[in-house]
Amino acid sequence: MSALPPPPYYAVIFTSQRTAVDSGYADTADRMVALAAAQPGYLGADSARDADGLGITVSYWRSEEDIAAWRRHAEHRVARDTGRSDWYQHYTLRVARVERAYAWQRADGLQDPAALTSNEERA
Amino acid sequence: MSALPPPPYYAVIFTSQRTAVDSGYADTADRMVALAAAQPGYLGADSARDADGLGITVSYWRSEEDIAAWRRHAEHRVARDTGRSDWYQHYTLRVARVERAYAWQRADGLQDPAALTSNEERA
Repeated sequence: MSALPPPPYYAVIFTSQRTAVDSGYADTADRMVALAAAQPGYLGADSARDADGLGITVSYWRSEEDIAAWRRHAEHRVARDTGRSDWYQHYTLRVARVERAYAWQRADGLQDPAALTSNEERA
Repeated sequence: MSALPPPPYYAVIFTSQRTAVDSGYADTADRMVALAAAQPGYLGADSARDADGLGITVSYWRSEEDIAAWRRHAEHRVARDTGRSDWYQHYTLRVARVERAYAWQRADGLQDPAALTSNEERA
């Protein structure tokens, strides 16, 4: 799970429904994860996909300029084109400014409800 | 997949790692989806969970006040408490302001690359 830098920063929320076409998908997805992580301003990403093919990937970025630069990356453009021709039935993409963030972590073997609550409430 | 209202609006990005404890989880998750959808200012939600237990739920709201009201909902509070005691190993929660949104949909049987590109670039 990606780390929590201090806000504000930006989230790119990519929600997609896959087609049945698998050819090249996993390799390209892995490559895009690695390539994104090497870009300026990249802060982390999380991804999950249901058995029925609905997936959500959220990547986090320092600024809108960093998102725009990643969008212009040549290899990323090619991957997006193949996504539209082969892998996706439909998708939505939202750019959002993260204003607040919280984390909670289970205390190993020690569940103090008061501690958990204060942990969740911190900013 | 949730609809795209005109920005700005707010996203609550909930990323979680499940424990192995399943008792009551699916019923409560279904109930929270239905209950959230009945709250003022609710605009939609998407959810996906990997086979390894990492999940992302993004819910969309008209305003921060609507998010705060949903956070205070009594039944939602109980579900969150049970989530911390039983279902989640760790989680992060981010509140973000959606500033831009795009959608792309496969044209049935008609794949015109120019049309697809302009479709993605709109908004």
